[in-house]
Amino acid sequence: MRKPLIFITNDDGIKAPGLRALIEAVKGLGEIVVVAPENGMSGMSHALTVSTILRLKEVAKEEDYIEFYCTGTPVDCVKLGGHKAITRKPDLIVSGINHGSNSSINVIYSGTMAAAIEGAIQGIPSIGFSLLDHSENADFSLAIEYARKIAIKVLAEGLPAFTCLNVNFPKNHKNEVKGIKVCRQAMADWDDEYVETLDPHHHKYFWLTGEFANSDMAEDTDEWALSNNYISIVPVHTDYTNHKVINQLKSFEL
Amino acid sequence: MRKPLIFITNDDGIKAPGLRALIEAVKGLGEIVVVAPENGMSGMSHALTVSTILRLKEVAKEEDYIEFYCTGTPVDCVKLGGHKAITRKPDLIVSGINHGSNSSINVIYSGTMAAAIEGAIQGIPSIGFSLLDHSENADFSLAIEYARKIAIKVLAEGLPAFTCLNVNFPKNHKNEVKGIKVCRQAMADWDDEYVETLDPHHHKYFWLTGEFANSDMAEDTDEWALSNNYISIVPVHTDYTNHKVINQLKSFEL
Repeated sequence: MRKPLIFITNDDGIKAPGLRALIEAVKGLGEIVVVAPENGMSGMSHALTVSTILRLKEVAKEEDYIEFYCTGTPVDCVKLGGHKAITRKPDLIVSGINHGSNSSINVIYSGTMAAAIEGAIQGIPSIGFSLLDHSENADFSLAIEYARKIAIKVLAEGLPAFTCLNVNFPKNHKNEVKGIKVCRQAMADWDDEYVETLDPHHHKYFWLTGEFANSDMAEDTDEWALSNNYISIVPVHTDYTNHKVINQLKSFEL
Repeated sequence: MRKPLIFITNDDGIKAPGLRALIEAVKGLGEIVVVAPENGMSGMSHALTVSTILRLKEVAKEEDYIEFYCTGTPVDCVKLGGHKAITRKPDLIVSGINHGSNSSINVIYSGTMAAAIEGAIQGIPSIGFSLLDHSENADFSLAIEYARKIAIKVLAEGLPAFTCLNVNFPKNHKNEVKGIKVCRQAMADWDDEYVETLDPHHHKYFWLTGEFANSDMAEDTDEWALSNNYISIVPVHTDYTNHKVINQLKSFEL
């Protein structure tokens, strides 16, 4: 039997420590192909390069391991890498480990999760991993341990159709983590702010900043789980339809 | 009573005829603020500008009408425009009219729909409109007529929480259109292809191309509706959780 093919990407780019942590997490579980963005691609969501060219460059190769960077977004990495870096369909796509949370509404903005969602669209079991720690020297040891367990499980059992996993790890020491909660996305929001500045030519420009604002702390949410030192797993769907309101809208006469 | 505030954006950029069609569609329904991307932003999905600056420039102003371009993505237009182009919360966000379909899985890649989804996250009734015709000189007359009706309805009645509308118009003459269907997103896919070319320095590069591939032609889908000359309306949720599989995954022991 052929070894499973594990495809790895991220949105923090090929130099991110979180990518190295994820490679370590799945080491030895199969043949590994890394296709990561050349540069940081945080907040790129499901963006796709359609109006310019893409490049793909091999940067490392050893037994059962090959690594490329791609000039595009995380979704470009999955799509272009899927065509040009490998010759068979991956058995698993893992994305991350992101430096910072992708829980709650962040799933919508995240390039890490977009790569996993793209995998689910293509029918490949896919998982996005994120650690609630933005720092360059974040401690990924807990994340590595659990990412490996989750990857082994998904390789063995697959995932429901049209569904990938959004896994977030609390910023914690190992002995404080209580376990895993499978939960729903908290319906939170961002309180955006724009910092207004003048350039040397006296023209205004803006920087986005802001605070995460959550008023949905029900116990079945990812935010609750993470605040209570659990690892959160949200099954993310590629069907964005709000099925519950279809009948209500049908009565909406025009 | 103050006139409703209608916020307009798109992803084809400020020069797109589809944007002018949408401005025409909502003319006279309230105070209008346009904040559109300076350049085309197709396929940008929910991408957000976090690592560089944004600019916002006023380009036209008359009674009850003001128009800006923003250097960012459609979501940047909604976020930055919401802070710096207006002083009250919009009563309605309309996005489009996109040159080309955003039905089915295209909702995930679409900048037009991302702007509407961002509106829904912010609790603003929001609608994305798209016409199944990519050409510069597409005939928007049917789309204008129905976009106006739908906008009037949503201004009067609002939308369910965390939900925006994905409206697609078939490429058809008026008298062939049979009406509106409220439906679900077809679970289709793209057969991507990458065209490989050599640059003048003999290095490879790639262009994304491909074909839309739909095997989900159930009668309750947007693809069925559009193929049968109906206008499709899909309610799109900002909760990406696949609630149906949560219990199944809980039994997934680690």
